Amino acid sequence: MLKQAKNRVGRNAILLAMLEDEEEHGLIAHLNALNWRYCKGKVGSMDLQKIVSAVETAAKRNGIVNGDLYREMHALYHAVLEAMQGVTRGQVELGGLMRTVGLRFAVMRGTPYENEAEGEWIAVALYGTIGAPIRGLEHETIGLGINHI
Amino acid sequence: MLKQAKNRVGRNAILLAMLEDEEEHGLIAHLNALNWRYCKGKVGSMDLQKIVSAVETAAKRNGIVNGDLYREMHALYHAVLEAMQGVTRGQVELGGLMRTVGLRFAVMRGTPYENEAEGEWIAVALYGTIGAPIRGLEHETIGLGINHI
Amino acid sequence: MLKQAKNRVGRNAILLAMLEDEEEHGLIAHLNALNWRYCKGKVGSMDLQKIVSAVETAAKRNGIVNGDLYREMHALYHAVLEAMQGVTRGQVELGGLMRTVGLRFAVMRGTPYENEAEGEWIAVALYGTIGAPIRGLEHETIGLGINHI
Amino acid sequence: MLKQAKNRVGRNAILLAMLEDEEEHGLIAHLNALNWRYCKGKVGSMDLQKIVSAVETAAKRNGIVNGDLYREMHALYHAVLEAMQGVTRGQVELGGLMRTVGLRFAVMRGTPYENEAEGEWIAVALYGTIGAPIRGLEHETIGLGINHI
Amino acid sequence: MLKQAKNRVGRNAILLAMLEDEEEHGLIAHLNALNWRYCKGKVGSMDLQKIVSAVETAAKRNGIVNGDLYREMHALYHAVLEAMQGVTRGQVELGGLMRTVGLRFAVMRGTPYENEAEGEWIAVALYGTIGAPIRGLEHETIGLGINHI
Amino acid sequence: MLKQAKNRVGRNAILLAMLEDEEEHGLIAHLNALNWRYCKGKVGSMDLQKIVSAVETAAKRNGIVNGDLYREMHALYHAVLEAMQGVTRGQVELGGLMRTVGLRFAVMRGTPYENEAEGEWIAVALYGTIGAPIRGLEHETIGLGINHI
Repeated sequence: MLKQAKNRVGRNAILLAMLEDEEEHGLIAHLNALNWRYCKGKVGSMDLQKIVSAVETAAKRNGIVNGDLYREMHALYHAVLEAMQGVTRGQVELGGLMRTVGLRFAVMRGTPYENEAEGEWIAVALYGTIGAPIRGLEHETIGLGINHI
Repeated sequence: MLKQAKNRVGRNAILLAMLEDEEEHGLIAHLNALNWRYCKGKVGSMDLQKIVSAVETAAKRNGIVNGDLYREMHALYHAVLEAMQGVTRGQVELGGLMRTVGLRFAVMRGTPYENEAEGEWIAVALYGTIGAPIRGLEHETIGLGINHI
Repeated sequence: MLKQAKNRVGRNAILLAMLEDEEEHGLIAHLNALNWRYCKGKVGSMDLQKIVSAVETAAKRNGIVNGDLYREMHALYHAVLEAMQGVTRGQVELGGLMRTVGLRFAVMRGTPYENEAEGEWIAVALYGTIGAPIRGLEHETIGLGINHI
Repeated sequence: MLKQAKNRVGRNAILLAMLEDEEEHGLIAHLNALNWRYCKGKVGSMDLQKIVSAVETAAKRNGIVNGDLYREMHALYHAVLEAMQGVTRGQVELGGLMRTVGLRFAVMRGTPYENEAEGEWIAVALYGTIGAPIRGLEHETIGLGINHI
Repeated sequence: MLKQAKNRVGRNAILLAMLEDEEEHGLIAHLNALNWRYCKGKVGSMDLQKIVSAVETAAKRNGIVNGDLYREMHALYHAVLEAMQGVTRGQVELGGLMRTVGLRFAVMRGTPYENEAEGEWIAVALYGTIGAPIRGLEHETIGLGINHI
Repeated sequence: MLKQAKNRVGRNAILLAMLEDEEEHGLIAHLNALNWRYCKGKVGSMDLQKIVSAVETAAKRNGIVNGDLYREMHALYHAVLEAMQGVTRGQVELGGLMRTVGLRFAVMRGTPYENEAEGEWIAVALYGTIGAPIRGLEHETIGLGINHI
């Protein structure tokens, strides 16, 4: 069974990606108390590859995943792709479809299940805007990918 | 331009769908001050049709949309479908792929742009779990759809 | 090279599916002069299977394809699926996504290329409405599939 | 309810995109009598972005949509994407899949419902050829997207 | 790095699913020497759910995965879905698109990387026929899904 | 009805793509006895276009298809695309999703049905690895496309 709301990797990743700096103090304190590994960052691009790359690089640099271990990178990669499907809603494509994103992302690695044998899971949350490559012609978007790691 | 974070339809819909009852007081007060129309609800099913139907019915009953006006139902329908793409991440299918969801949803109709001429927009947020039709074999999922209305 | 507009299988199938009975006399005379095989019909359903089945049955009964020859049924089947992608625009699904269609269809088998060695090709055109399972809550839709046969 | 065939945005957009110059006189007279806004154009490319861009630019220049209003550009954008799904039938991709298109397009903005409260709708129709980047190795294709505006 | 061909989970799963009984003796001996867990089975249906279910049940009954541990079932589920995408090539749907499959499947769990830290991976291979629900109107199809476990 | 296993185009194409050079002698002898046309090759790229192009070029150069006849190139093209869907499992995209493939491919043209009237069919098989653009961070993948020709 999943733990209660405050101890879930998805919900915490979404809040970390979505809350403004001045709103996140309580969340950060809670995550530190959980002793989970996490990071957040920003990326804007018409190029999907840059989104994938920004999240992977941040996760490796902050020690969320071990970049030399394929099983960890494989888990992270599929979580990123699933999150991008929420962001793009149908065609996982940006510039080719004449659109661009401005995203904040969070990666979180923790133990969201009551049963210890379920081990660690990773969540990737993306939140921001998607729209035409013209300032202001955009609306919000979100995506979440979760995988066992 | 989109208004600042607290006055966006997507972010507010996500928080309304995701926060526990005891966490949402501040959000509800804020939404009421904005004078926006919104509703929330719960639905669990292996049947996509029931998810679509539950959101549409709640939105109509709570006066978020006018069920007799196709242009409003069309706007809502596409927002629901886009939200389901975040939830299902690839194939918009549940039972056929041997999986089920337990979701909380929020529908929000407001004016998220600084330019008044941008008028009203509708957001549908879905948050909950997706997994095998066996209690506990599930992880979190989220989806957001936004449309002009 | 494709022949000029009037001697193309796709354009003729679209017109046959889309024109009202009182508009199609010139088209029918032209098709008969070309000596091509064609048929038209109607089908309405929330069930994709019934759309596929209605088109296949009409094509077999009218001698457009030989139902005992898999290579002909394979060519027709893929043309129907491609036409359904235009109709559904993203997810090839109807009732599961809480929507229904009312379609007129045409199947046309002819020789649209100047080079005789290009042989016969088949076109499936679908035109009608798609929308909620409530009368009037619907808009137009079209699809065209083409294959060598 | 949709108006009868001659007063529908989709059917008119398809005919405008598909008819040869010498065939379209009656259609143009009818559209002008309806007092609807419309335009037509041509675009050929292996690059999806150029197709989207050509349609958007034509619609803005001809006053079909207001390019400064995101809600109008959002309505148009989704209509273009839906039309491209009919053209590409499965993967909304051209050059990456080693194929190119030569399309004629029409954009039409009108009032296709009997109920005046349903307001304005926009249709984007694309008709032409798709195939290998070698002259003649191509067949016909069509797509239609419709949205409230 | 992946080990050489004979010690890969995907290739072995494909051969196990594809070889006739009289051809597989050498393969079985090799797999037993590797000391990997594997099983094979057959399933025919117009219903995707039955395919997923047949593979999951066989994998649990043969001890390839622990059915009580979600992280193992999650790994297996995504491998099955990815294999079904190869089988269905575009729309992960069978009966709704008026087609049926007759498949042999293999599930294999082993250590295909030279680096021991890469641990165990699971492969699901499906091989058989797909076609109309009429005997003989069918062609071959294959799919392979691989995941860390 | 399909002929027995050894005389099927899909199975033979898969084996030809997957077997190591030292394993394929029996297969080659069998194919030559069948008097079928076939070829094999290798291609590695982050660019889908190069995969499509490599297979098409090999098939033309080896006389499997007639490059001047669109109906043959159309049959081959769709077989390649279907095979790529098995390889990419969901989004037919490589570099844009930050991944690369190293593939061996086989194209086979033969008569796999007992009924002579079913004529010739073409199979394209792809087997190899897919993963991050970093050596070793990859797993196996397969795809098969089949079409009448």
